[in-house]
Amino acid sequence: MSEQPAPAQTTVQASGSAVPGSPAAADAGPLPAELAAALKRDSAGLVAAVVQQYDTNEVLMLGWMDDEALHRTMTTGRVTFYSRSRQEYWRKGDTSGHVQWVKSVAMDCDGDALLVRVDQVGAACHTGTRTCFDGRELNVTTAQAV
Amino acid sequence: MSEQPAPAQTTVQASGSAVPGSPAAADAGPLPAELAAALKRDSAGLVAAVVQQYDTNEVLMLGWMDDEALHRTMTTGRVTFYSRSRQEYWRKGDTSGHVQWVKSVAMDCDGDALLVRVDQVGAACHTGTRTCFDGRELNVTTAQAV
Repeated sequence: MSEQPAPAQTTVQASGSAVPGSPAAADAGPLPAELAAALKRDSAGLVAAVVQQYDTNEVLMLGWMDDEALHRTMTTGRVTFYSRSRQEYWRKGDTSGHVQWVKSVAMDCDGDALLVRVDQVGAACHTGTRTCFDGRELNVTTAQAV
Repeated sequence: MSEQPAPAQTTVQASGSAVPGSPAAADAGPLPAELAAALKRDSAGLVAAVVQQYDTNEVLMLGWMDDEALHRTMTTGRVTFYSRSRQEYWRKGDTSGHVQWVKSVAMDCDGDALLVRVDQVGAACHTGTRTCFDGRELNVTTAQAV
């Protein structure tokens, strides 16, 4: 079983939780070994991926990625998610045309979240709003005035 | 067992997945019933919370909230998370002083993510960087140039 030979291609700096010989590192998956070892997946094998418009910094949506979805996102130019409800890979825009072009991907300090900066074509939300959070504010009773 | 009597206080518009009589709605928790019914928690009872600086739109970090953590975030002016690793509630800033003051909270279209806009004092990351993603970019081989 060969390991991915290219950990030097990543700039992962959050590998404190990497465990050599752990299942994630030992199973040759689609990701560079160092990155695969640093990811802290939930019980379903997923990490949260925050999608942000690269020039305005709007938070567009949150999706979920397993190793293969992250690999596709890093190598194809389009964001790929893994659907928890449908249990399948999907790309924003395949039916709507509202494509997300990848600008950059970063992993957070403890490896359980990704920040994917994109150029979003049209609406990010399937309901037609620009972001999946637009018009969905909750009542916050003691917040400071913005 | 009394239910929270105040669903009208929320502006939840993403209640398509609400199931009257579901465990989340039937157990009187800390949240308004409509909000509790609309949240789509993972197997650990958590939703992802994206924390964003309200004036610059920087994505600072991602944390996790159960119903109680969300309730505290909505009612105390400070962001409260639930730690998956330590299995306890925590607030950014209690030890570092790097407090997050809540400006607004929104739930996404399918109820499994929150966007918490804050005023972040100092560094959001425990490593000392402004955000938990700073300097942690992965190699993206086919991204468009920013």
